[in-house]
Amino acid sequence: MSTKELMMQSVVEEAPHPSTKVTVVGVGQVGMAAVYSMMIKGVASEIALVDIAEDKLRGEMMDLQHGQAFTSKVNIKASPDYAISAGSKICVVTAGARQREGESRLSLVQRNANIFKGIIPQLVKHSPNTILLIVSNPVDVLTYVAWKLSGLPQNRVIGSGTMLDSSRFRFLMSQRLHIAPSSCHGWVLGEHGDSSVAVWSGVNVAGTRLQDISPLAGSDEDPENWEQIHRDVINSAYEIIKLKGYTSWGIGTMVSTLCSSILHDQKSVYALSTLVRGLHGIEEEVFLSLPCVVGELGIQDIFKQNLNDKERNQLCKSAKGLRDIIDGIEL
Amino acid sequence: MSTKELMMQSVVEEAPHPSTKVTVVGVGQVGMAAVYSMMIKGVASEIALVDIAEDKLRGEMMDLQHGQAFTSKVNIKASPDYAISAGSKICVVTAGARQREGESRLSLVQRNANIFKGIIPQLVKHSPNTILLIVSNPVDVLTYVAWKLSGLPQNRVIGSGTMLDSSRFRFLMSQRLHIAPSSCHGWVLGEHGDSSVAVWSGVNVAGTRLQDISPLAGSDEDPENWEQIHRDVINSAYEIIKLKGYTSWGIGTMVSTLCSSILHDQKSVYALSTLVRGLHGIEEEVFLSLPCVVGELGIQDIFKQNLNDKERNQLCKSAKGLRDIIDGIEL
Amino acid sequence: MSTKELMMQSVVEEAPHPSTKVTVVGVGQVGMAAVYSMMIKGVASEIALVDIAEDKLRGEMMDLQHGQAFTSKVNIKASPDYAISAGSKICVVTAGARQREGESRLSLVQRNANIFKGIIPQLVKHSPNTILLIVSNPVDVLTYVAWKLSGLPQNRVIGSGTMLDSSRFRFLMSQRLHIAPSSCHGWVLGEHGDSSVAVWSGVNVAGTRLQDISPLAGSDEDPENWEQIHRDVINSAYEIIKLKGYTSWGIGTMVSTLCSSILHDQKSVYALSTLVRGLHGIEEEVFLSLPCVVGELGIQDIFKQNLNDKERNQLCKSAKGLRDIIDGIEL
Amino acid sequence: MSTKELMMQSVVEEAPHPSTKVTVVGVGQVGMAAVYSMMIKGVASEIALVDIAEDKLRGEMMDLQHGQAFTSKVNIKASPDYAISAGSKICVVTAGARQREGESRLSLVQRNANIFKGIIPQLVKHSPNTILLIVSNPVDVLTYVAWKLSGLPQNRVIGSGTMLDSSRFRFLMSQRLHIAPSSCHGWVLGEHGDSSVAVWSGVNVAGTRLQDISPLAGSDEDPENWEQIHRDVINSAYEIIKLKGYTSWGIGTMVSTLCSSILHDQKSVYALSTLVRGLHGIEEEVFLSLPCVVGELGIQDIFKQNLNDKERNQLCKSAKGLRDIIDGIEL
Repeated sequence: MSTKELMMQSVVEEAPHPSTKVTVVGVGQVGMAAVYSMMIKGVASEIALVDIAEDKLRGEMMDLQHGQAFTSKVNIKASPDYAISAGSKICVVTAGARQREGESRLSLVQRNANIFKGIIPQLVKHSPNTILLIVSNPVDVLTYVAWKLSGLPQNRVIGSGTMLDSSRFRFLMSQRLHIAPSSCHGWVLGEHGDSSVAVWSGVNVAGTRLQDISPLAGSDEDPENWEQIHRDVINSAYEIIKLKGYTSWGIGTMVSTLCSSILHDQKSVYALSTLVRGLHGIEEEVFLSLPCVVGELGIQDIFKQNLNDKERNQLCKSAKGLRDIIDGIEL
Repeated sequence: MSTKELMMQSVVEEAPHPSTKVTVVGVGQVGMAAVYSMMIKGVASEIALVDIAEDKLRGEMMDLQHGQAFTSKVNIKASPDYAISAGSKICVVTAGARQREGESRLSLVQRNANIFKGIIPQLVKHSPNTILLIVSNPVDVLTYVAWKLSGLPQNRVIGSGTMLDSSRFRFLMSQRLHIAPSSCHGWVLGEHGDSSVAVWSGVNVAGTRLQDISPLAGSDEDPENWEQIHRDVINSAYEIIKLKGYTSWGIGTMVSTLCSSILHDQKSVYALSTLVRGLHGIEEEVFLSLPCVVGELGIQDIFKQNLNDKERNQLCKSAKGLRDIIDGIEL
Repeated sequence: MSTKELMMQSVVEEAPHPSTKVTVVGVGQVGMAAVYSMMIKGVASEIALVDIAEDKLRGEMMDLQHGQAFTSKVNIKASPDYAISAGSKICVVTAGARQREGESRLSLVQRNANIFKGIIPQLVKHSPNTILLIVSNPVDVLTYVAWKLSGLPQNRVIGSGTMLDSSRFRFLMSQRLHIAPSSCHGWVLGEHGDSSVAVWSGVNVAGTRLQDISPLAGSDEDPENWEQIHRDVINSAYEIIKLKGYTSWGIGTMVSTLCSSILHDQKSVYALSTLVRGLHGIEEEVFLSLPCVVGELGIQDIFKQNLNDKERNQLCKSAKGLRDIIDGIEL
Repeated sequence: MSTKELMMQSVVEEAPHPSTKVTVVGVGQVGMAAVYSMMIKGVASEIALVDIAEDKLRGEMMDLQHGQAFTSKVNIKASPDYAISAGSKICVVTAGARQREGESRLSLVQRNANIFKGIIPQLVKHSPNTILLIVSNPVDVLTYVAWKLSGLPQNRVIGSGTMLDSSRFRFLMSQRLHIAPSSCHGWVLGEHGDSSVAVWSGVNVAGTRLQDISPLAGSDEDPENWEQIHRDVINSAYEIIKLKGYTSWGIGTMVSTLCSSILHDQKSVYALSTLVRGLHGIEEEVFLSLPCVVGELGIQDIFKQNLNDKERNQLCKSAKGLRDIIDGIEL
């Protein structure tokens, strides 16, 4: 008899999959920041890591496991085989290729779409009722790709979109006002990247609309230059990459927050990339970020914010551009 | 069109039951302390309250709900109708009658067994795969009653047992040593109440066994009188009831901790009332507390601690006494 | 040598007061819900309980302590002697008399002011740099009384005010919209109680102003009757008291949230009772609730929200009424 | 008037330093994992980052800040100038040189001691009452160096020591027994690294000593080869470095846990590097890991565990070896 058998009488076999399981595909800086945050906060009871880099995978798994004597127990598993992802409530995809020198954006998108062909069907095969959370860039296109490859309903395919852009916007607001970022309200919507839309009419603090205090806020004539905040949001990723080589903590925190909201059925509202056809005059079948209500079923509602003409036109322009890219992809 | 429809486009209907739902039967001091602790810590995404006192039920629900703008959202529901408990992962039972003046213990047990006949089948009917967590006293007998009435397998019927006694023991240890209770290790097992067993041979701190430092610890000859801690544990409930009228926070924290361990599949070890036939020479089909490994399936393993003859005899005596009571109950 | 001395070598004596200490005066339902919430969340490292009811005090202390083997360690102390409060960062006052049948409001206020004469100077004597958080009712008058009796600067004397009213408002909003209360934004300001002001122009969700969708919201002509939410807020306390006898969980959560924001220097914005002379045309030296930025120094800034005439008039009327009451108090 | 002035009335100036401030010197993988974990858990209200790599410093700061709209607000500051560390309750040092090819261990130690000459006096100058937490390797020697350079009392200079080794030991135990790591108790003491001591006599689960079940556990004759766990602990760092290039999550979690225990005055017991002269027959003035009680004053007590001759001899041998190294350092 083993020590375990001498010590304990077994009452029941272990369940194959705990009910709050998350899989993360890609153990790069973004994936690992997300996993570490989820482990520290005890968001899931099991996290499966999938990647093609077996050594890295095993090293990350061990490193995470070794911290668990003093946190909530989270069962960390790792394998290049997607079987390990079986029974996941959420599958987070952070894997993807980076742009090569001189490579066109379309070529990059096609390469990543090809990578997704090896990932998404595998995930859905092992977890047919999962929610896909796409983080890889360009996120709006790749979330569409994941939706198409998965065959899942719209609510179950979510792109991290401009959630991080909105978080950056609120942080920069909070620095101007010397208050908590969570008390600052502002939304960056549309395409994640250079053509995102800051909805200045909705920016408010403590029930006061910024434009009621400072009517020019967001415009080019604003003496306080609030629009600089939006420009800083757009430049953030570039600047952080220049300074430290990659971004990780900010996006990792977003993924962890989002997974927690889904698993705990929070019905919180975040800016996420979702299928937007029919909203704000968009006619294309594309994914763009709008404020979404998130719960256990994924995206349950989409907010139809009041946008002015400029904001709406920008969204429609992004939609057309994204559709052109999508039309160029072979799926 | 309502404001909600004007504001949001619905993507998917809400799910009927979130995956981390807990029902609490009985909204007295114990039940409410447990519910408040679970809400504050975000243990479950939905908590259903069931009681026959409709006014109290509604008042408690509203009072809890009003705190939620600044905590995790927990969906609080309340009704005297058990239909509200449908889809619960865990059903906590705190309901039960109190001893009348001059009433025999057996009479009280029979009255509570009768109350359980109205509760347990209803819970199992609406949540056939639930885990029952029995807190009502006398807990060891009533956990047996719940097991019989429910038809659930052993692992799915748990009594809070001596988990609180063990917690009290560790706190009192911690006061003598001026260290954190969580760094003090000691187990109170057996019958919850006056005949519980403090396993002195297992008491240890920082890898040092108390009896290796103080060989008489736990015996009558001990000059430091460590056994007083066990006596204080036994007297705790009586003393607190004398001082404030009831106990609530301690047991509420136990219930919340246990539900969290189950829902997050923690595999933590607590002293819980479980079916112990065949262990430590116990021949009767009774429930008594032993260290149990707790996860998503309830009790997964039972520890077969080394006990000395005195401890084992006390357990066997408790088992016989409990069996006599059980044999007197009409189910 | 004691077991402790045999087990451990002392390196340094314990510090007299930990740096995150909170005192709660009054161990009734409100005080205890606040303390339990703070213990569960590990908000403070020491909580001192002060009350005149010695038995209740000791019973509550023991009951809290017994849960600590499975939560963060919080040092719980209790005594009728204010010396136990020494070194507190925050002193929460929940003590106070209840209205007697046929008693005038002014008579009640005077009785509570007299009780505060026995409390406030004692607290300030033992913790000269403390922040006073007043919860006793009528909260706006008693916060003024505490300010006067304490001699502390304005930022260090805070009334819980309409923070709970605002939380109730957001919860009721969230039920209409089926989203998280924390994603609903709305402010109830002014006097805590029947004459509070719901600032409808500031109500918003996801960057969309309610009145932009539903222009009549808050008015008597509104077909969706949003104003009912405000009426329900006002009736909440009455209704809960009728249903369960007292309110506890809601206000307890507010106190715990506020103490956490102060001790962690969060700079969050809450509706709190503060000295408002000079704002919104108020000329009297009174305390009323406005959105306040809260950090380690207490109230650091007060928001000067845009109010319409009706709202401003209501605030001024409340200010005059409160001043009349204050003028009738003997301090 | 600025928008901020139009929006808010200032009540009081901000305090220069919040009461729960932590400085981390070195923003490499270890330092950043620790900082991220502390931010996610809201351990401190301000974290100052110090490093000589200005770009990296700024990039890490921005990346952390951008996640804060959805977590507790933690004020993140960064500068190569130690002035930014002023008023820290804890200063964590993760900076240090790595071994060059062919470099002797003594040469590496001297180089790191020289680096510490530029760090430690600066930290103590700006935070004279701080607690130093040394993480850089070789940790036992460098904690001694920090103690000497700082002039701080013993309790205020702590090395992370074998806390991580002990955590790894418990995790590996937990894998054999299929229970939570936090329910597994075992201690790895002495020198952090190859000559650490696993105290097999203290290994226990649920009050049962492993050696009472499996008397040969830890010996060479053990058919279950439990000693393999200790060998795996020793090999962990090497293996993880081979697999992923560095260790970060495990040690980051330790630092975060330890800072939380100190700031919340938890009196928890961890294996930490401390001045051990006079314990277990050690005559040298050296730092080695023993179980320590940690609170707001740093190390408050050291456990004098029962060790057998072999374990004691190993500690004494480590002490002599460390002293030889220390004697070779120029301070």
